[in-house]
Amino acid sequence: MTVAANLTIADVRLTPILVADPPLLNTQGVHQPYTPRLIVEVETADGTTGVGETYGDTKYLELARPFAAKLIGRQVSDLNGLFTIADEVAVDSSRVSGQVDVGGLRGVQTADKLRLSVVSGFEVACLDALGKALGLPVHALLGGKVRDAVEYSAYLFYKWASHPEGVACEQDDWGAAIDPAGVVEQARRFKERYGFTSFKLKGGVFPPEEEIAAVHALAEAFPGHPLRLDPNGAWSVATSLTVAKELGDVLEYLEDPALGTPAMAEVAAATGVPLATNMCVTTFAEIQEAFTRGAVQVVLSDHHYWGGLRNTQQLAAICRTFGVGVSMHSNTHLGISLAAMTHVASTVPDLHHACDSHYPWQSEDVLTERLTFQDGKAAVSDAPGLGVELDHDRLRFLHQRWLDDDGTLRDRDDAAAMRVADPEWVTPTVPRW
Amino acid sequence: MTVAANLTIADVRLTPILVADPPLLNTQGVHQPYTPRLIVEVETADGTTGVGETYGDTKYLELARPFAAKLIGRQVSDLNGLFTIADEVAVDSSRVSGQVDVGGLRGVQTADKLRLSVVSGFEVACLDALGKALGLPVHALLGGKVRDAVEYSAYLFYKWASHPEGVACEQDDWGAAIDPAGVVEQARRFKERYGFTSFKLKGGVFPPEEEIAAVHALAEAFPGHPLRLDPNGAWSVATSLTVAKELGDVLEYLEDPALGTPAMAEVAAATGVPLATNMCVTTFAEIQEAFTRGAVQVVLSDHHYWGGLRNTQQLAAICRTFGVGVSMHSNTHLGISLAAMTHVASTVPDLHHACDSHYPWQSEDVLTERLTFQDGKAAVSDAPGLGVELDHDRLRFLHQRWLDDDGTLRDRDDAAAMRVADPEWVTPTVPRW
Repeated sequence: MTVAANLTIADVRLTPILVADPPLLNTQGVHQPYTPRLIVEVETADGTTGVGETYGDTKYLELARPFAAKLIGRQVSDLNGLFTIADEVAVDSSRVSGQVDVGGLRGVQTADKLRLSVVSGFEVACLDALGKALGLPVHALLGGKVRDAVEYSAYLFYKWASHPEGVACEQDDWGAAIDPAGVVEQARRFKERYGFTSFKLKGGVFPPEEEIAAVHALAEAFPGHPLRLDPNGAWSVATSLTVAKELGDVLEYLEDPALGTPAMAEVAAATGVPLATNMCVTTFAEIQEAFTRGAVQVVLSDHHYWGGLRNTQQLAAICRTFGVGVSMHSNTHLGISLAAMTHVASTVPDLHHACDSHYPWQSEDVLTERLTFQDGKAAVSDAPGLGVELDHDRLRFLHQRWLDDDGTLRDRDDAAAMRVADPEWVTPTVPRW
Repeated sequence: MTVAANLTIADVRLTPILVADPPLLNTQGVHQPYTPRLIVEVETADGTTGVGETYGDTKYLELARPFAAKLIGRQVSDLNGLFTIADEVAVDSSRVSGQVDVGGLRGVQTADKLRLSVVSGFEVACLDALGKALGLPVHALLGGKVRDAVEYSAYLFYKWASHPEGVACEQDDWGAAIDPAGVVEQARRFKERYGFTSFKLKGGVFPPEEEIAAVHALAEAFPGHPLRLDPNGAWSVATSLTVAKELGDVLEYLEDPALGTPAMAEVAAATGVPLATNMCVTTFAEIQEAFTRGAVQVVLSDHHYWGGLRNTQQLAAICRTFGVGVSMHSNTHLGISLAAMTHVASTVPDLHHACDSHYPWQSEDVLTERLTFQDGKAAVSDAPGLGVELDHDRLRFLHQRWLDDDGTLRDRDDAAAMRVADPEWVTPTVPRW
């Protein structure tokens, strides 16, 4: 009755790529024309290959390489062991500041968090390989799905019609959105294309009154639909409270209005609008203070920097225990990560908020078949592993783009992209308003 | 590459048994000559059988029967679904008081906790079946072991030489232990037989000064060995502090000196001796208050009432996040549960205290081969599933004993057992001292 599958890791391949990214605006600047991602392939002695995906900036790649070397000869089922390996891999201290991440959008930056972000790519690849070898979907390796489809929200962005770099890069067909009418139009298109019924607007781009107007316009256009606004910590406590007051009736939650636990706690104490975060609680070490102070009501997990799918389940258990909601954050990602997010989300019992995903903004992918959203939901695959297949030609093509890059796009830098349009641009100090 | 194993549950068998138990004393009374346990067998359509074990008192059995019926046709990999089933099974309200359990030794008694105790038996059986079907040890289904052996402590009891019922029941060969010399002798035997180096004394039996003397005697006989004392909440805050002061130099921790979070918090605030618990924090609902108030420094998980091995991992993650230690509690249990405890303990990274186990006190088991301790440790099995095999003849024999019982031993009642020796005995009110 026992299976003879050889689960020993025989090969690990790391492929950094650059994928097209639309000119989406945030408080730091604008997305660059191409953004780095790292594709991980783990192959067992039996020839089963699992795929994973994580951040692709140089500092992640530098860490992933020695990590990959240590994986050879281990079992793909040894997921707890990935954290042991992580502890053994040295992080160049110049790569971490202990402060908020240089991008400003991923919360505190620490060596441990960098390691966990790398672990997540390998963990997902191991789970995919293990599932394929055993004939089980990844959700079954996580205890089994409790729902057949996972709800996602439409991730609305202020955006330009094209990158300031011009025709040299891929163009998207979404057009510009720089005012309430543009945001509503974008939302309408999201709803038509994918059936999303929750809307999140990335804010912190324009003065708060303009963003308040945009959310009011969304509320009017889509009455009763859950709405969220996320300025990435760009506001002071006072501004946050003003926005909360103005939008209290229409917001499902306000995401990271102010930066850091003390400021968030101050805001939370003075408003009934729930606060969500993917910036002040991004590591297990930040939980105790934030929860004890009541600084956040919803934690938006990003399985990349929380250290994988099983850590995400642990985070969800902690949130449940402390009466804090849980949902999912998204940074730019491809289909592998969307599949991973969907598998783990399907196993979390108390998932009461639609998850975020950038995926609709990504016109390029490394899969033979793109994942889809229907009625605002992604179906949970019951195929072995993640249920996705790597398109090796496409992977090579996107890797060649990374090889051809002179280095300027290998590390995401939204402020640098903004300087192409506005040479005077400097990363705004926080609070910006 | 995918496995064709049919993981559908085709049959579930529940076998209540009575197993011999020595006359161990605690603050409620004395162990009865036989104690009930419930053995769970889950069989897949392919004929793979997994085994689990949980509490066997009538109220657990009553709940396990409808639960078992709902399992048929589900997948053994659907572990999250067990909690969904639990929610669907009605608990007779007369079975739960919302107060401390009638036995007084398992913490608060709620319908949810009763359900989780039943879940745990099925979860372990499903994990065992799943592991056997896939050719993986249970620890690999939990993310993989981080150690090859799990350390246990010697669980010392004040005890009589024989049950007051006399020759009608099984006799143990441990003799009496009712004073410091007897306790030290028992500890010496534990060390000789199994190599244990940590010692836990079940207290709350004699006035505190006698138990203090016993621990001092242990400290003298085994210098440098971790020592623990557990009066099951029998003391007042003042008495707890007196004992903490007297034994502060030799105790690894004091376990449940006083009853409930407020009293424990008061003790914790006034002593540097760490407090452990398996009584004031026995459910996820009790964590927030206890951790916020600093009432406990070590949570002793019992996978039975925490709802299984995966919930135990979640508990460990919560403890780690809040800087609280974790180890394992034990109630009377057999080899199936010892194997389950060992598998999950092998996957918990921050396990810094030896786990408790009653197993050495159980002369009877339902396995073809008893598990063993060497150098105070139980080896983590790498065989598929739990790595244990059910002895069906033995199971039938112990079940026949349950069938033959007139009902007096089917529900553990340490006070009733005490009344055989002392007809005037009433369950002591707490605090007893």
